[in-house]
Amino acid sequence: MKHVAILGSTGSIGTQALQVIAAHPDRFRVEVLTAHHRVELLAQQAIRFQPNMVVIADEEKYGELKALLRDEDIKVYAGNEAIAQVVETESIDIVLTAMVGYSGLLPTIHAIRAGKTVALANKETLVVAGALISHLAVHHRAVILPVDSEHSAIFQCLAGEGNNPIEKLILTASGGPFRGKDRAFLQAATPAQALQHPNWNMGAKVTIDSASLMNKGFEAIEARWLFDVAPEQIEVLVHPQSIIHSMVQFADGSIKAQLGMPDMRLPIQYALSYPERLPTDLPRVDFDTYRALSFEKPDVARFPNLALAREAMRRGGNLPCVLNAANEVAVEAFLHERLSFTGMSRVIEQTMNKVTYIATPSLEDHVTTDEAARRVARELIFN
Amino acid sequence: MKHVAILGSTGSIGTQALQVIAAHPDRFRVEVLTAHHRVELLAQQAIRFQPNMVVIADEEKYGELKALLRDEDIKVYAGNEAIAQVVETESIDIVLTAMVGYSGLLPTIHAIRAGKTVALANKETLVVAGALISHLAVHHRAVILPVDSEHSAIFQCLAGEGNNPIEKLILTASGGPFRGKDRAFLQAATPAQALQHPNWNMGAKVTIDSASLMNKGFEAIEARWLFDVAPEQIEVLVHPQSIIHSMVQFADGSIKAQLGMPDMRLPIQYALSYPERLPTDLPRVDFDTYRALSFEKPDVARFPNLALAREAMRRGGNLPCVLNAANEVAVEAFLHERLSFTGMSRVIEQTMNKVTYIATPSLEDHVTTDEAARRVARELIFN
Repeated sequence: MKHVAILGSTGSIGTQALQVIAAHPDRFRVEVLTAHHRVELLAQQAIRFQPNMVVIADEEKYGELKALLRDEDIKVYAGNEAIAQVVETESIDIVLTAMVGYSGLLPTIHAIRAGKTVALANKETLVVAGALISHLAVHHRAVILPVDSEHSAIFQCLAGEGNNPIEKLILTASGGPFRGKDRAFLQAATPAQALQHPNWNMGAKVTIDSASLMNKGFEAIEARWLFDVAPEQIEVLVHPQSIIHSMVQFADGSIKAQLGMPDMRLPIQYALSYPERLPTDLPRVDFDTYRALSFEKPDVARFPNLALAREAMRRGGNLPCVLNAANEVAVEAFLHERLSFTGMSRVIEQTMNKVTYIATPSLEDHVTTDEAARRVARELIFN
Repeated sequence: MKHVAILGSTGSIGTQALQVIAAHPDRFRVEVLTAHHRVELLAQQAIRFQPNMVVIADEEKYGELKALLRDEDIKVYAGNEAIAQVVETESIDIVLTAMVGYSGLLPTIHAIRAGKTVALANKETLVVAGALISHLAVHHRAVILPVDSEHSAIFQCLAGEGNNPIEKLILTASGGPFRGKDRAFLQAATPAQALQHPNWNMGAKVTIDSASLMNKGFEAIEARWLFDVAPEQIEVLVHPQSIIHSMVQFADGSIKAQLGMPDMRLPIQYALSYPERLPTDLPRVDFDTYRALSFEKPDVARFPNLALAREAMRRGGNLPCVLNAANEVAVEAFLHERLSFTGMSRVIEQTMNKVTYIATPSLEDHVTTDEAARRVARELIFN
């Protein structure tokens, strides 16, 4: 029986994680649920899964949550500080970090410091502070298990490979809803269009990042830290069917790939059950339907975010933090129709040029870099 | 340093194994080389790799081999009995069984009884006597490592998976040179046509087996024993590019696949270096060249060998032994233009119907079954 904390339980990953847990009640017990602001769904989940504790990040919702759970034997807390604290609870084995964006960083650090296994669904944590998090995990002997389908694929391919040298990681990308679209289309693209992902059903932020290929750039940075490879060992390959979730090429030339239907419940479950695999009735790949799996190079000229992310990965320091903060602001502005689709890359690039570069940032440097980058990006958009 | 015996060193697998060993002189030392009759090549190999012992199966060639190696400090033997004996030599760590056909059975049994690791390139061994060999390997704690590219792929995918339940094995098949050909073409097909394999460069017997899909039937039976799965858990999927060498689907729905260029040196090296991987300069898969990997169901009506092999696998006993013996005779007759391409399946099917079925055959039963099946098949062809 594994005791699980789910941070961000009302989001896309969080709700699917609860489906996985509901399917295996003999294997998992929910200890903690946290959410940003969706208090009613959080209360429903708490009543169903009976965790020891729930936390709502938005402190104004505390009263409402407390009232909804008044008949339950569940401790109720509020605020980001409380989220960072509860992950340290002794009874927790594994912390699934499924909140969106930069807010995942501090609770992840707390979980690592407490030596918990972290099932990392919050990619911004490694994008923003990969070097720091990696060192911390080694120091505290905390295991970080990837949840992203691409990194889960690579992790599955690396099982049993010991120290066998990796030649390269091949991160597959669906190409998103705008694959093959021309510049004019991209300039006029609306949030509604960008939110139509061809294969994956995900939250809004990551769906926009997917359309702009920033998501793949983030994943490259994440992979660099998770698997300790050099930036030039990471290749992005567009694979529109999203059946091959990623591949590893070893030094002997052999490639291992992980395949499956595009369904996040599979990598979520693998992270929770690792190193075991538990039976599921999730849909299987039918090669009568998928009679061809195709590949193409990503179009970096039309999707410059991939090049920006690669530059941030290569130069390192606080630049990935700037990249992430500017992107969060740009995506938010795009979703509110205050910035064009192509304008997002422009804002991110200019922000990367304006914020002071720090080669080996501390956690505090990340916090100030994040603030500075958001301020600069907002000025670029709204002034 | 691993000490290697190569049985069948002058064949396709044997010569490629020596290329692998030549590329890693610090990792492998050749202890024994054996060949069927190609005495000059065997002598050249012996002079280059300086094994302790060489054996020529054809006893009439003993004098010639002895003369060719008169200036070398290498022991020279002849005969199948000698081959079966030398594999037991104490200094040998791993025995690569790369001879063609049924002749691989006895030396493999001797190697297993001596507790050697067996790198199994002779698929007939498991086809003919899979139950017996599997029990023997467990009893003598001998490790059997697959060399066939498909089984190596599955073995690579199973690394690190412990007891995670396998849902099915997906054996990929190129479909051979006659994929998509109609009945009239197949009836008139010549040995020269059948020997033109689109992707793999292999020996004549296995290339014909590949054209008739018997090779894939054998591989299914081999997989059944190597990976301890039920016949119905093995699926054959035609994949004309031969880039995905096979796949494993686990009980959670996740599929792992191994990919690479069609080059036997990769699986040969993996078997020799396992669990390590050694760097190679073998050609890499270029997804700019392989922009689509395609799949189709095998055409069992036009290639009935696949159905015959599946029946032999399902019914078990001495039937796979009959299948193999009848096929060896049929392929030999086809290569000498004494039997048509489609006639091969007819002969095999009739032989399977005529030879007495034995549910749990002993090694002696296999020997007599093999003789009986060959006699019946020859009568069907030549009378």
